Amino acid sequence: MSSVRVAPGGTLGILGGGQLGRMIALAAARLGLRCHIYCPDADSPAFQVADAYTQAPYEDEAALSAFAARVDAVTYEFENIPAPTAALLSAARPVLPDVRALETTADRLSEKRFVRSLGIGTAEFRPVDGHGDLAAAVGALGRPSVLKTRRFGYDGKGQTIIRPGADLAESLARMGGQPAILEAFVPFTKEISVLAVRAQDGTVATYDLVENEHRNHILDVSIVPAAVPAGVEAKAREIAAAIIAALDYVGVLAVEMFVTGAGEVLVNEIAPRVHNSGHWTLDACLVSQFENHVRAVCGWPLGSTARHSDARMTNLIGGDVDAWARLAAEPHAGVHLYGKREARPGRKMGHVTRISPRSS
Amino acid sequence: MSSVRVAPGGTLGILGGGQLGRMIALAAARLGLRCHIYCPDADSPAFQVADAYTQAPYEDEAALSAFAARVDAVTYEFENIPAPTAALLSAARPVLPDVRALETTADRLSEKRFVRSLGIGTAEFRPVDGHGDLAAAVGALGRPSVLKTRRFGYDGKGQTIIRPGADLAESLARMGGQPAILEAFVPFTKEISVLAVRAQDGTVATYDLVENEHRNHILDVSIVPAAVPAGVEAKAREIAAAIIAALDYVGVLAVEMFVTGAGEVLVNEIAPRVHNSGHWTLDACLVSQFENHVRAVCGWPLGSTARHSDARMTNLIGGDVDAWARLAAEPHAGVHLYGKREARPGRKMGHVTRISPRSS
Repeated sequence: MSSVRVAPGGTLGILGGGQLGRMIALAAARLGLRCHIYCPDADSPAFQVADAYTQAPYEDEAALSAFAARVDAVTYEFENIPAPTAALLSAARPVLPDVRALETTADRLSEKRFVRSLGIGTAEFRPVDGHGDLAAAVGALGRPSVLKTRRFGYDGKGQTIIRPGADLAESLARMGGQPAILEAFVPFTKEISVLAVRAQDGTVATYDLVENEHRNHILDVSIVPAAVPAGVEAKAREIAAAIIAALDYVGVLAVEMFVTGAGEVLVNEIAPRVHNSGHWTLDACLVSQFENHVRAVCGWPLGSTARHSDARMTNLIGGDVDAWARLAAEPHAGVHLYGKREARPGRKMGHVTRISPRSS
Repeated sequence: MSSVRVAPGGTLGILGGGQLGRMIALAAARLGLRCHIYCPDADSPAFQVADAYTQAPYEDEAALSAFAARVDAVTYEFENIPAPTAALLSAARPVLPDVRALETTADRLSEKRFVRSLGIGTAEFRPVDGHGDLAAAVGALGRPSVLKTRRFGYDGKGQTIIRPGADLAESLARMGGQPAILEAFVPFTKEISVLAVRAQDGTVATYDLVENEHRNHILDVSIVPAAVPAGVEAKAREIAAAIIAALDYVGVLAVEMFVTGAGEVLVNEIAPRVHNSGHWTLDACLVSQFENHVRAVCGWPLGSTARHSDARMTNLIGGDVDAWARLAAEPHAGVHLYGKREARPGRKMGHVTRISPRSS
């Protein structure tokens, strides 16, 4: 790809108007860039902070063309861009990261094969397309193991654990006829992630390693620095850097990994976008994951990924947000609310980052 | 005043659409608040990041009424709100800070008398309404001394130095027939400022002392921590806290002061708003001056004013902004650009804050 530069005063188009799009837009504003959000939802949090927005379906060709005509480059907050949408926009304007990178990561099977092809470890896995495959796969990987749809899974949706005694036909039925993958259970001691950013010239930077805790399959807490041996941190950074380079990816992505008791680092999943486990960078780094994403896609130099403080980020899910006034009264808490009207159960409404002086 | 609370999802109205309004709006967005900007200028930087805006003159009663109807409370980025505008809005919605605080500080003479009434030092001064007054005042205060209009001066506008040999009639003519004040020259060793914030319940917090350097009467550099003895820092904080309380002010204000060779602290000027010398708080504090202003006027608990890093903020004036790409490549520089189209000489286009680990 030839290089793209959106200079101050230029307009960045963003597909998706949720909290990630909102925080990308706020970061772009800091750099003197205008943002134009494209999202089908009327109540999109990102609309509230953008210079312009288009509320239209992702299939609306006229609206997409008009959007493209008004922006200098396009990025996105989510990885499931419909292919025709991507094709139409890419023909008119630079779209970054290149959506070809998404093809690899959109399917758990191709993602795992890609990671393995780089010599990087993952859980053992087997493709599962029918009952016969599943029985053989469970025979090979044992129980417990995890059956997942290959595409469109997030926050634990589209996956089921095959425990001893579980009925395989029932487990397979939960996949709704979608192609699936069986993954061996990894006896991990920690879940970690690395946020990596890559500029158009190939420069790669990584943020400090994040330790993550999930609740009901949704990220609950991210802690930085992660309490892991220095060797694990170095290895995790290397893995993320190798993946982002091999994908020829421009912008920020997150690599979620498991650390085993033996100190092995296995890749669990690649999220080709800014990521919830990087929200702490807003308060504990000079340049956040959102700003570095904007810098990369707009052809600016990358900013520092250094951390000035330790951080503990906690998601505010559903009714958690009702505690906003108490949280705002905490002396070292950075409160971030996303401007969503309805606090439905399981919905990410905001987050709070508690910072403390840098320990290491 | 009864207490005002704008909860997440509520709308804060902001009079003025310049960079201060823009940065207030960005801080409010972080808290899940919507902003509606009111400004007569078509190319207002704050319009680009707000949920809604009204472009209309400050004298347009219909537009002001419609604006008031759409917001939950009103604040402002500048201190020269026309009295009828303030009256109309105050009748419809809470306006914070209360504009009565502005009356005291709008006139340099009443401001200095107010500061003196609190037992706080200022430069010696004399009111000057005509040539006779000026001659007597110069006789009393000596040369050099500084002749200033009482109202509407900023960034060195409306002031002239009376040096030995200066023609008094000519100096007075520069005041354009406006009421003026003569101030004794203060042989200061440092210019400093304190950003203070006061909540609706009277709680006051101050940010760390800032050392300022001006160029052509415009703020050039702000440095934190200021290199002053601990006694000076404590005294300066006390002065700012006394002033903000005596004004019964809600929100952020800046007090600019001189430090003399003898360690005396004299108040130079009160800026009843968020202030350029507080921009470093965006990068070196968890909660910036802008967010604390929003918290105060919206009835939230104040956030921490603690500094996690040392900071050196440099304004980007006029063509300085052309260096944006070079600045963005500096490893520890936070770059902030205001989204203004034209880089006219003397115009504040952005700022850059270089941070370093906290030294003290």
